Amino acid sequence: MEKLFVIKIGGNVIDDEKALADFLTNFASIKDKKILVHGGGKIATQIGNQMGIAANYIDGRRITDAATIDLVTMVYGGLINKKIVAQLQALQCNAIGLCGADANIIAATKRSITTQNIDFGFVGDIDVKKINTKNFETLLTAGFMPVIAPLTHDGNGQILNTNADTIASAIAIALSTIFETRLIYCFEKTGVLQNIENPNSIIKILTQELYQDLKNQHILTHGILPKIDTAFSAIQNGVKEVLIGHSNDLIKNISENFTGTLIK
Amino acid sequence: MEKLFVIKIGGNVIDDEKALADFLTNFASIKDKKILVHGGGKIATQIGNQMGIAANYIDGRRITDAATIDLVTMVYGGLINKKIVAQLQALQCNAIGLCGADANIIAATKRSITTQNIDFGFVGDIDVKKINTKNFETLLTAGFMPVIAPLTHDGNGQILNTNADTIASAIAIALSTIFETRLIYCFEKTGVLQNIENPNSIIKILTQELYQDLKNQHILTHGILPKIDTAFSAIQNGVKEVLIGHSNDLIKNISENFTGTLIK
Repeated sequence: MEKLFVIKIGGNVIDDEKALADFLTNFASIKDKKILVHGGGKIATQIGNQMGIAANYIDGRRITDAATIDLVTMVYGGLINKKIVAQLQALQCNAIGLCGADANIIAATKRSITTQNIDFGFVGDIDVKKINTKNFETLLTAGFMPVIAPLTHDGNGQILNTNADTIASAIAIALSTIFETRLIYCFEKTGVLQNIENPNSIIKILTQELYQDLKNQHILTHGILPKIDTAFSAIQNGVKEVLIGHSNDLIKNISENFTGTLIK
Repeated sequence: MEKLFVIKIGGNVIDDEKALADFLTNFASIKDKKILVHGGGKIATQIGNQMGIAANYIDGRRITDAATIDLVTMVYGGLINKKIVAQLQALQCNAIGLCGADANIIAATKRSITTQNIDFGFVGDIDVKKINTKNFETLLTAGFMPVIAPLTHDGNGQILNTNADTIASAIAIALSTIFETRLIYCFEKTGVLQNIENPNSIIKILTQELYQDLKNQHILTHGILPKIDTAFSAIQNGVKEVLIGHSNDLIKNISENFTGTLIK
């Protein structure tokens, strides 16, 4: 099977112009087929503030009301996505910027109101079986590099907000039936750390057993757990390799001399 | 040659939710290959006002400063484009929303400062020869319906603002070498009118000679002249048919019983 990299960059990289430019140069240099999934960054909140749209969080998760879904559709699907595409095109990388509605690549279901009566609003949950592998394959085979904004759609005309880590994992799983797929999470840390203050305390290989131990000992903190969960979901569902590392280390982390955390 | 429709909708349709929904239902029902080019509408100005970005015009043309190019990238490339795509997908039309940077479909040149020392800012002028017919053909042949936001790029990482009528005309011309191409301009009037107050005064067929006469007699007013100029440019450069009409009349206007203005 042909190789495919699904690479995700987080908001911290997007918020830093120089870090983003360096990352995109490295991304563009990868010869294999590749998909970039990007997060949101602080810019949506900044623009929301300018527009008088208050950010509303429950349990650290932003509530996506009607004003907010328009805001993130603009910022994620327009501003961030198109700037990344233009920069990649300048690097001779034939990027094509898409959200989940485009070519119907990622259909999702609007999240129901929870049993605790929390309404997350226009948030989409993905079913891996509904990832449109055929259209992804068509685009990749034609030589395009999809750049995916963290937005999905419900198939009835509504755009939905969806976590970028989850999208990257779901795409990697779905495409692992067609390609030898590797999922690389790029963020602002060198990997999964034993001690969050020490960038050298990288856990080189994270197994499910070790993960349980570190959770039980409260060594791994809340923030990184959802990312690790989507990473394990990927490795348990056909993805060849999953790695969590720093955005600066992309080229190392797609080689055998990786410096981040390999999920086993 | 296979048929292709390049259909452009203006801002007035986009600003009217019901008119847009009706238009998209008609667009989706067209069986032939098709491309939709959309304008901007008032929403960019509204959001700009909310953000404190003042609209700045010279001779009726908006100056695209750094804040404005970000604004239109968000609104045209994100909000408007993705909402249209999601609505078309709900109508089983396999839409894919793109700006000129995506798949490098429309490269442009940043407009130079004019001899009157006017700097239009981040505005892109198109060279028809640089329309990426190969990538358009790949997408169309794969069954996708491109939905194009009025944004181009300079190939060096910069998004540029470009008039949607001009984009539609340039795409239609470029693709007329591959497809039997028809260009349909849809706007809020029934066609080119002898008397702008009378929607029944449609000029059924507009020839270059009649156009000159009507201009000389000041019957045709300033606002519609650039649209007619791009229409003539299309018909003189390989496009099979160019029609200007009301967005409600799309289905009629792609038939032989058209009700708008045919450009000859």
